[in-house]
Amino acid sequence: MTLPDADEPQATPSPKGPSRRAVLGASAAAVGVAAVAGAGGFAFGRETSSSLTLRSYDFRGPHQSGIVTPQQDRLHFAAYDLTTSSREDVIALLKAWTEAAERLMAGGELGSGATGGSYVAPPDDTGEALGLAASGLTITFGFGPGLFDDRFGLASKRPEQLIDLPHFSGDVLDDAFVGGDLCIQACADDPQVAVHAIRNLSRIAFGTAAIRWTQLGFGRTSSTTQAQTTPRNLMGFKDGTRNLRAEQTADIDRFVWADAGDGAAWMATGSYLVARRIRIRAEIWDRTSLQEQENSIGRTKGSGSPLSGGGEFTEPDFTRAGGDGTPLIPVDSHVALSHPDANDGMAMLRRGYNFTDGADSLGRLDAGLFFLAYVRDPRTQFVPVQERLSKSDRMTVEYLHTTGSALFAVPGGIGPGEYVGQALFE
Amino acid sequence: MTLPDADEPQATPSPKGPSRRAVLGASAAAVGVAAVAGAGGFAFGRETSSSLTLRSYDFRGPHQSGIVTPQQDRLHFAAYDLTTSSREDVIALLKAWTEAAERLMAGGELGSGATGGSYVAPPDDTGEALGLAASGLTITFGFGPGLFDDRFGLASKRPEQLIDLPHFSGDVLDDAFVGGDLCIQACADDPQVAVHAIRNLSRIAFGTAAIRWTQLGFGRTSSTTQAQTTPRNLMGFKDGTRNLRAEQTADIDRFVWADAGDGAAWMATGSYLVARRIRIRAEIWDRTSLQEQENSIGRTKGSGSPLSGGGEFTEPDFTRAGGDGTPLIPVDSHVALSHPDANDGMAMLRRGYNFTDGADSLGRLDAGLFFLAYVRDPRTQFVPVQERLSKSDRMTVEYLHTTGSALFAVPGGIGPGEYVGQALFE
Repeated sequence: MTLPDADEPQATPSPKGPSRRAVLGASAAAVGVAAVAGAGGFAFGRETSSSLTLRSYDFRGPHQSGIVTPQQDRLHFAAYDLTTSSREDVIALLKAWTEAAERLMAGGELGSGATGGSYVAPPDDTGEALGLAASGLTITFGFGPGLFDDRFGLASKRPEQLIDLPHFSGDVLDDAFVGGDLCIQACADDPQVAVHAIRNLSRIAFGTAAIRWTQLGFGRTSSTTQAQTTPRNLMGFKDGTRNLRAEQTADIDRFVWADAGDGAAWMATGSYLVARRIRIRAEIWDRTSLQEQENSIGRTKGSGSPLSGGGEFTEPDFTRAGGDGTPLIPVDSHVALSHPDANDGMAMLRRGYNFTDGADSLGRLDAGLFFLAYVRDPRTQFVPVQERLSKSDRMTVEYLHTTGSALFAVPGGIGPGEYVGQALFE
Repeated sequence: MTLPDADEPQATPSPKGPSRRAVLGASAAAVGVAAVAGAGGFAFGRETSSSLTLRSYDFRGPHQSGIVTPQQDRLHFAAYDLTTSSREDVIALLKAWTEAAERLMAGGELGSGATGGSYVAPPDDTGEALGLAASGLTITFGFGPGLFDDRFGLASKRPEQLIDLPHFSGDVLDDAFVGGDLCIQACADDPQVAVHAIRNLSRIAFGTAAIRWTQLGFGRTSSTTQAQTTPRNLMGFKDGTRNLRAEQTADIDRFVWADAGDGAAWMATGSYLVARRIRIRAEIWDRTSLQEQENSIGRTKGSGSPLSGGGEFTEPDFTRAGGDGTPLIPVDSHVALSHPDANDGMAMLRRGYNFTDGADSLGRLDAGLFFLAYVRDPRTQFVPVQERLSKSDRMTVEYLHTTGSALFAVPGGIGPGEYVGQALFE
């Protein structure tokens, strides 16, 4: 089993645009990533690039990058409002974004760069990523319901999967983190590279789209390939043990990639992105017993093994009972209620991040999980699961509330010469 | 020239407490950092720890860590209000913080850990750093003016250097980012390690101190040792080229470390931390010409060399004029006005970070520089410089405004058996 071509790491610099990597040491620029890894270039006390930051991925391929790509450590996510009513403006923006994203992912600068243009004009690139490697940057574009309202003549093309998400129990939505006509997910192993991407793509959008909200994620809460270890969320538990992985190609095809036969033909090879800003009631959670914490999750806090026994990747046994005859994995635990067995076999590809945005007016930590999940159909893979969790899952009911929510149609792979979402417009 | 002992990287695990590193691969845990660097452990496509994340520093030493320590990539900073009026409570907190900080910096867990305590009690450690290396974590404590009000009998010990900062031109302070009775600066090369530290230290403070404000920094904007390359700020320019470095021991002694003869004897070997949350008017800056940008800074955007010529580290020549007879480095540029020559030879040790906190209500980027600087006397090293810059420096006047501000006395080094700030209380 191999990764899709679109997500194979590229060891060679992109031929497009001036490469930021030119400013790295010649030895790092001249050799491939694997070679660098063994080249002894990591002498302690000298500043060096790690294998992570030297990775780069192709923007073009059978699917958009940033979905089954090995999940990077850092995130900057932005949702936009379209401020135009011109279909041509939207197309022009998507073309400009396509060209820019391809350059940024290759580690290059935009346009004539931060310093290469006219001295009496603003530089095309803001420059804060100069000297930084590609850092595994992926840029993933999505279309919100607003793109299909009466402004752009696209109403008839709105996929039936791109629903208006219902209200869920535990939703305490803050308008500052809801919706958006467009979105960009920028993931990288260096946060400055992700921030640079969102900033410069936002700048390109000036006059056509404006930032509605953004979210910075500082640590991943899932793995999208089998080689990655399972990270921990801010509840202190391993998260995403059972996540779909890129190597499960049959499941990825079944649960992640939209098909031309699904309804909206233009969405073929695309997916749907559910974004939920989930705040953890950290002060309460931190004062509950280890027993209550583990019973809420259904796994041990240390190894992440199910409470029915075994190791992290042992299949949970929901029938196994303890001495008192009740199941070792409580029926209202997160593992029990989110397991495919409880959800008609449904699964999703999670790609979330830990976040912290300081303290609220009461001094409570504003921190939690920025949940991102890619699904083929939110109506069957997200909504029923979330309805069940929000009403019955002890972890969700007692310790979480959701402050932001959005759904986006993520168009399919971008071929040579194409722009993102082209099939929707032509 | 060598680094002070306190800041020498420690290649061996701390003997204190259970080490989180025990869960890393045995090969990584068993060998020193330098050995790992050359051991070929960086095979591409496998998840590995870089030399950065394996670093650890000693909490105890001649000065607090996190000042001349090689500046780490990520920051979580917190300011606290004391919610007690008991001097004994404050001492107990500082003792608890000392013990906890020492463990955290060694890569260990707090108390009995995230899973090692009683099953029916809350764990002592929240657990989200389990499995992560020490990551070069430093924890630096500071005391704000409020500690010296009438609550704790310490008014007579307030250092004259710990002034109430005056209002500066361009200050548009948001109460949400001002002041604090205590502060903690947590720097690390993994943001989750820094966030974990602040969260758990805040938890220890419950009932004695509460978070007043926090700031996450995603990328450093200065270097504190000569081995580090100069990073870029969100204006796209190299920042901190002329920063003091740990190797300049005479200058560090002169400009950073407080002396018993400076007034407050308890502050010997300590320093004063100026914290300023500086927002960049990014939308305006990004639309100015490269010429205006370079003239505002006084350096080229690409290499960071002064406009009078040479390379990044060439000394600026403020007298050198161009064809029209005016200085190549404009007299109102940041380099000209912040240079020691314009400030009675004064210097400071900067240790700031880039931040972004999303967008404001108008969709403008809320991003900039979280300025941190360590000085021996803010009255001579910060206030006059900032007064000059805030009134005359083109960069500051036109493109920045300051939304947060605080000053802290950072007590001196912590010896064996001591707690932070002990000399103030005993």
